[in-house]
Amino acid sequence: MAAPATGAAPDLPALDLTGDLTDLLVALVDIESVSGDEGRVTDAIEAALRPLAHLELERDGDVLFARTQLGRAERVVLAGHTDTVPIAGNVPAVVTGEGDERVVHGRGACDMKGGVAVQLAVAAALTAPSRDLTFIFYDHEEVEAELNGLNRIARERPELLEATFAVLGEPSNARVEGGCQGTMRAEVTFTGVAAHSARSWMGRNAVHAAGPLLERLSGHTSAEVEVEGLVYREGLNAVRISGGIAGNVIPDRCVVEVNYRFAPDKDAAAAEAYVREVLHGFDVTITDVAVGARPGLDRPVAADFVAAVGGEAWPKFGWTDVARFSSLGIPAVNFGPGNPSKAHADDEFCPTADLHTCRDALLRWLG
Amino acid sequence: MAAPATGAAPDLPALDLTGDLTDLLVALVDIESVSGDEGRVTDAIEAALRPLAHLELERDGDVLFARTQLGRAERVVLAGHTDTVPIAGNVPAVVTGEGDERVVHGRGACDMKGGVAVQLAVAAALTAPSRDLTFIFYDHEEVEAELNGLNRIARERPELLEATFAVLGEPSNARVEGGCQGTMRAEVTFTGVAAHSARSWMGRNAVHAAGPLLERLSGHTSAEVEVEGLVYREGLNAVRISGGIAGNVIPDRCVVEVNYRFAPDKDAAAAEAYVREVLHGFDVTITDVAVGARPGLDRPVAADFVAAVGGEAWPKFGWTDVARFSSLGIPAVNFGPGNPSKAHADDEFCPTADLHTCRDALLRWLG
Repeated sequence: MAAPATGAAPDLPALDLTGDLTDLLVALVDIESVSGDEGRVTDAIEAALRPLAHLELERDGDVLFARTQLGRAERVVLAGHTDTVPIAGNVPAVVTGEGDERVVHGRGACDMKGGVAVQLAVAAALTAPSRDLTFIFYDHEEVEAELNGLNRIARERPELLEATFAVLGEPSNARVEGGCQGTMRAEVTFTGVAAHSARSWMGRNAVHAAGPLLERLSGHTSAEVEVEGLVYREGLNAVRISGGIAGNVIPDRCVVEVNYRFAPDKDAAAAEAYVREVLHGFDVTITDVAVGARPGLDRPVAADFVAAVGGEAWPKFGWTDVARFSSLGIPAVNFGPGNPSKAHADDEFCPTADLHTCRDALLRWLG
Repeated sequence: MAAPATGAAPDLPALDLTGDLTDLLVALVDIESVSGDEGRVTDAIEAALRPLAHLELERDGDVLFARTQLGRAERVVLAGHTDTVPIAGNVPAVVTGEGDERVVHGRGACDMKGGVAVQLAVAAALTAPSRDLTFIFYDHEEVEAELNGLNRIARERPELLEATFAVLGEPSNARVEGGCQGTMRAEVTFTGVAAHSARSWMGRNAVHAAGPLLERLSGHTSAEVEVEGLVYREGLNAVRISGGIAGNVIPDRCVVEVNYRFAPDKDAAAAEAYVREVLHGFDVTITDVAVGARPGLDRPVAADFVAAVGGEAWPKFGWTDVARFSSLGIPAVNFGPGNPSKAHADDEFCPTADLHTCRDALLRWLG
C-alpha cells in the first residue's frame, strides 16, 4: 500500500510502484521535499526501486540513477526532479473527484511529483524495455542553477547522462512539448539628481524617467517564432522595479529588471541584440542568460516517440532542464502530467487522467 | 576655549559661548548627536548655560529650556534641534577658508548646529533683552514625529512653549523664511495578474501599468502660490516605486509613493483634492499629511522682526517645526545660517558669514 496519509510518520513511507498511480502521487506529495530537503523522498524512491532486479541503482548525493543494462541499440533517459518550491499550506495532499476524474491537490502535485510518479510506475512495469532506460531523480531544480543536481552531474560525471534521447517529466498537459525557450534578464537603469522633495526643482527624478520605458514595454508585441514546425511565443516584460530611498527625497536612481523569454532559434547574442533594439535609447545591462533548446523532433528517435504518444508536439515556453540535455547534444522533450501554468501556484494540482495518459504512452513507446 | 578637535574625549567638551562663533560651531559638530543620542550635546549645552545668571534652566529629557524672567510684555521663543541625520564620514568638522570666508564642513553644520551656535551666542550675550526669551534645544527632530522633543512638549506641557512669536533656527540662508509648506504622501497602487514570465500572456503586468502615472507626473507643472505676499513653489513627485517579486513572475502589484509639497494656503482637504484631481483615474490612497504654516508676517511682532533683520522675507519650502508653533497659535518663522538645500547632504556646511549675519540680526532685534 501507499504511504500513510501524512508525511509526518517517523519511519520512511513505503511507495507502491505497481498500485494506483493517484495513491502513489499522494504518497510522494506527502513527503515534503522543498529544495535542499530531498533526502527523505530520495530515500523512499531508492527503497521502492531497490527490489527491482532489472534495474541497477546508483546514488550520488540526492541524485538517484536506475538503469537497465540490456545491451539495446538505444538508451533513453527519463528524468524528473524531486524537489518543490516552498510549502504553502498545501501538504498533505487532498484528492477530489471520483475514478478517472480524480485530481490530486498539493505542493509538487503538478511540478513535478506527477511526472516522478509516472516514471516510477514505468520503471517498475518495464522489466524488458525496447530501449535501455536511465531513470534519473534529482535535487535542487527549483533554485539557482549551481545547485541543480542534474547540472552537477553534467559537470562532474557527464557519462552518467549518455543517451540517444531524453524525456523530462515536467508538466506539459500530458503532451509532448519540444525544446524550450531561452530566458535573458536585463537591468535598465535610470539616474537622476537627488534633492529634498520640498525643493524638487533642484533635482531630476529618476523614477519619472522610467515612464517611457514602461510605456514602451506595455506597447510592445512579442514575436511568435516558428522553429522546426513549432510556434514559440516570446515575451518581454518588466518583472521588477525599484527606485527611491525615502519619502522626502527625489530619487536619483531607478532600476527596472526586464525578462526576455525567447524562442530557441536565437542564441545569447541574438537575444541580446533583440533586447537592445527594442530598448534602444535606454541604459541596458544584460545580467543573465540561459539559451533555450531546439525541439530536436527531426531525429528518428524523437519522431518515433511523438508518433507513439499521439502524433503531435507543442512548443515549451518555460525554460526547463531539457536545455541541459540539449547542450550535451542529447535531444530532449518535456512530457509530463499537469498543467504547467499551475507550477508553483499555491493551488497546484494534477489530474489522475494525465497520470494515466503519460504512463500508458511511455509503456506503448518503450514496451 | 572650544571643545577638543574630536568628540572622542571622554569628558564633556566645554563650549565657549562668548568666543569665536566658528569655533563654537566646530565644537558642536564634533559632539556626535545622531537622533536618539542627544544626551551628550545637551549636557554640554546645559553646562555652558548653567553659569549665566540671567537664564533659568529647565530640562525635560533631552529638551532643554533657558528662560529670561524680566517681566517683559512679550516673550519670544528661539528654538533649535540638537540632533542630526546619521554621520557619513563627516565628523569631526573641517574648516576651510580664512577670516569671514571660513566655512565649517561636517554633519549638522547646516542642519542645524549653526542655528544652535547662533542661539547660544545670543543667549550668552543678551543679559537684558527687550523681550523675554525662551531658548529651546530639543531632540529627535530628524526622525518620526512621535519622537520629536518639541512635539512631546507641545503635547505634555504646552505652557512651556507660550510666546508671542517664535524663531526656529533652521537653515534659511540667514534670511527670514516665513511659514512652511505642507507635505502629503499618497500611494498609487496598480494591480495585475501574476503569471510565470514564460507565459506572460496569462498575466497582466502591474509594473507596465505604472507607466502612464510616471508620464503624468513627469509632465506635471507644479503651481506657484502666493500667500501673504510670499510665493511658494509646490512639488508633486514620485519618491519611491516598487513592484515585482521574482525574476520569472509577471508582477501583479506595483506601488508608487507620491509626495506632494503644498503651499500653506491649503488645508489637508484641499491638498488631497488637488492630488486626486491631478491623479484622476488612478487608485490613490492618502497615507500621511502635515499641513504647513502661514507666514504670519502680518502680526506686529513678526513685522518688527523682519524689519530688524533686513526687511525682506521669503517663503519656506520645506516642512519645519514652525508648523507646530503655528498649530499652537504662535506665529513662527525660520531664520538660521546655512543653505537649506545642503541639509542632510554628506557635504553639508555652514559659512561663518551666515553665523555672524544671524547673530547680529537677533542682537539688533532683541538688544
